[in-house]
Amino acid sequence: MNFSEPTHKTVPDLTIWGGTALTLNRNNDVIPNAQIDILNGRILSIQTVGKPQTLNAKKIIDARNCLVMPGLINGHTHTGMTLLRGIADDMPLHSWLNDKIFPLEKKWGSKEFVYLGTLLAQIEMIRCGTTLFNDMYYFEESAARAVHESGMRAICGQTLVEISGVEDTHKIFGQFDEFLGSVQNYPRVMAAIAPHSIYGVSDVVWERVAEYAFQKSLRVHLHLQETQTELEDCLKKRKMTPTAFFEKIGLWKNKAIAAHVVCVEEKDIEILSRNQVGVVHNPESNLKLGNGIAPIVQLRQAGVKVALGTDGTASNNNLDLFQEADIALKLQALQNGVGKLKAEEVVKILTIEGAEAMKLDHELGSLEVGKSADLIAVSTEEAHATPIYSPFSHLAYSASGSDVKHSVVGGTVLMENRRVLTLDEPAILAEARAWAKRIAQY
Amino acid sequence: MNFSEPTHKTVPDLTIWGGTALTLNRNNDVIPNAQIDILNGRILSIQTVGKPQTLNAKKIIDARNCLVMPGLINGHTHTGMTLLRGIADDMPLHSWLNDKIFPLEKKWGSKEFVYLGTLLAQIEMIRCGTTLFNDMYYFEESAARAVHESGMRAICGQTLVEISGVEDTHKIFGQFDEFLGSVQNYPRVMAAIAPHSIYGVSDVVWERVAEYAFQKSLRVHLHLQETQTELEDCLKKRKMTPTAFFEKIGLWKNKAIAAHVVCVEEKDIEILSRNQVGVVHNPESNLKLGNGIAPIVQLRQAGVKVALGTDGTASNNNLDLFQEADIALKLQALQNGVGKLKAEEVVKILTIEGAEAMKLDHELGSLEVGKSADLIAVSTEEAHATPIYSPFSHLAYSASGSDVKHSVVGGTVLMENRRVLTLDEPAILAEARAWAKRIAQY
Repeated sequence: MNFSEPTHKTVPDLTIWGGTALTLNRNNDVIPNAQIDILNGRILSIQTVGKPQTLNAKKIIDARNCLVMPGLINGHTHTGMTLLRGIADDMPLHSWLNDKIFPLEKKWGSKEFVYLGTLLAQIEMIRCGTTLFNDMYYFEESAARAVHESGMRAICGQTLVEISGVEDTHKIFGQFDEFLGSVQNYPRVMAAIAPHSIYGVSDVVWERVAEYAFQKSLRVHLHLQETQTELEDCLKKRKMTPTAFFEKIGLWKNKAIAAHVVCVEEKDIEILSRNQVGVVHNPESNLKLGNGIAPIVQLRQAGVKVALGTDGTASNNNLDLFQEADIALKLQALQNGVGKLKAEEVVKILTIEGAEAMKLDHELGSLEVGKSADLIAVSTEEAHATPIYSPFSHLAYSASGSDVKHSVVGGTVLMENRRVLTLDEPAILAEARAWAKRIAQY
Repeated sequence: MNFSEPTHKTVPDLTIWGGTALTLNRNNDVIPNAQIDILNGRILSIQTVGKPQTLNAKKIIDARNCLVMPGLINGHTHTGMTLLRGIADDMPLHSWLNDKIFPLEKKWGSKEFVYLGTLLAQIEMIRCGTTLFNDMYYFEESAARAVHESGMRAICGQTLVEISGVEDTHKIFGQFDEFLGSVQNYPRVMAAIAPHSIYGVSDVVWERVAEYAFQKSLRVHLHLQETQTELEDCLKKRKMTPTAFFEKIGLWKNKAIAAHVVCVEEKDIEILSRNQVGVVHNPESNLKLGNGIAPIVQLRQAGVKVALGTDGTASNNNLDLFQEADIALKLQALQNGVGKLKAEEVVKILTIEGAEAMKLDHELGSLEVGKSADLIAVSTEEAHATPIYSPFSHLAYSASGSDVKHSVVGGTVLMENRRVLTLDEPAILAEARAWAKRIAQY
């Protein structure tokens, strides 16, 4: 194996050594006693070292007794609503949304609410091993500002909800122009347009969205066929599924990321595959809101790239992707029979396949020379990591977010020995609790 | 509210103060700033204290920013097989059992294997908030010895697998007599007889088990209608379900605990209810091995008391009951509609209702004066616990085992500030890893 390029003349910015590296590269190579050198935010070399050597990097991280792997990708979340964690449980989607979440958002939604919520969510995500998230919310420029501060990487999608169809489209897209302008100086933020769903945007505006995204080369992030009601209403109104409608209007010509995709059948899967739409599976949210189980095995068999997502904290209620992976595997065993989705595959979904779904696999998702140094070290020291016969089995079925020890994005250390370095955790948590007191009184 | 008895003249052995106490008593009282005094292993008083007072207990635990609650009850597990964690994933139950687990157990099963496995499992369980577990395995006297050392409480069920029907029943019950003798000096161990399943024991021996347990007032712990195959084979052979067969032979006259109970219909549920059989729901194992979802809502509606269980580490793969609770809730939302099982109810299942299923609710399962001081403190300091609008929602949907900060059983502190005090964690983990190396080579 040759993972390394000559490094003896270079002083790396950062070296992570001593762990077992799960590269998630094409061969799925596992490298014991790995030394990973990082320069200018990218992976310079990965090699096995026989024993601790004299390291010359500016910063050195000890990853012994860790699995070192690409950072996890959260393919669909709403970080701006984190202050509403657990505020409305045990309700089905449409009443949860209309009776609880929408009114609460109307009352509390603001730049400050979103900024703080995104800071809070990022503390949790960093602690759970996420390095990239695909976000969708209102006031998304405030989310982007929070991302800029945390050191994480994100696709920030400004939500569009326009139910009446009478909004001034000129105004809508003017606001999008503003949003794009406001985030362009944040190098780790990729702007996206995030029209809520087939039922949240009128057909005429959907057509404009498709054009607008195409002109600006923007990702489009939307909820797709999350519920049976959504599907049936669309069939009644348009005589076709949302997936077919979006193909018809050219939405899928864009880099598109569709969340949920629960209520789809063969024809929709074909369309998604043909158009290389990335799909995000949110198993916990789909269960909690009573929507069912997405046909992930069938989607993947058709060649669709799948990521995992947590959805927002009001429908989960945490942001731990390891739990999401565990449940995803077990639900597919229930739905399709045991072994149709395997532990190793779900670890791919968390990393390299997730990156493919986000159209970022040229940069991220595996530990390979030249790729961005977005990686985590997962401790294997606890009892629940004892013994480990397969690291993939451990990650998929037993690990939890609290095992993540170190986190690095673009060569910057976000967390070391479970201490978040880039955000003021106590202050953010205290402020979130103060907000929640006010919200609870309302 | 009067939770306290006069304490000013007594010096408690232990006081836990400053947390929010979830009593899980009949009113489900929640006591802020709780001071819990413990004497001779039992709860002496629970009261709200305005501010930190002068405490006179021999030992004092600070539980500020914690939810203090009854210790969690793991209603069905096989701790002796913990060294086989994750050794065979992504396989359906009968091939998992016959092709992998049974041969591995035949090769490796021994007193030492079970003793070490149970020590290892208990470290994990203590760390995840479990204080009582209902165990089933071979060499169970070694498990009981490990329980005696850890300070946990357990029902130790010696497994009986006797497929051929030709075993000498005299010998079988002689061995049970020996087992009962060997564990009688362990005060926190309750001995049980654990015949594996309808397919693991011959009918004639089942009848003897029913009698034997009745004579000795033993709990009976078994797998019941876990798979469709098990049910159909029994219907073919006996023209009745396992549940009906066990009623016929008088097994249900005993304190009986039935694990899994996935493939049951109305008639079986009636029988279980009428006979007050405790049922243990193992949602993760049932999914992982492809067995389906137990009808917990229907069982509870019929008055059956339900506990949660993790099953063994080879079919889960961890022992975290908080994850189990989260999945249980979400699966019932999928199966029966959102809200049919609620967050607060699943916290009861983890504690007081679990104790009812184990027939131990007179001693355990709630924080009440006079009950055994088996309790845990769950930290609410992390980002994923921010904010909390309902402690029950937090515990059910967001908490994880790693949030458990302190653990107390019968007034003895098993873990303080996440340090396990009663077992030599590094030595046990090191020995488990050494065993696993040998097992992996086999």
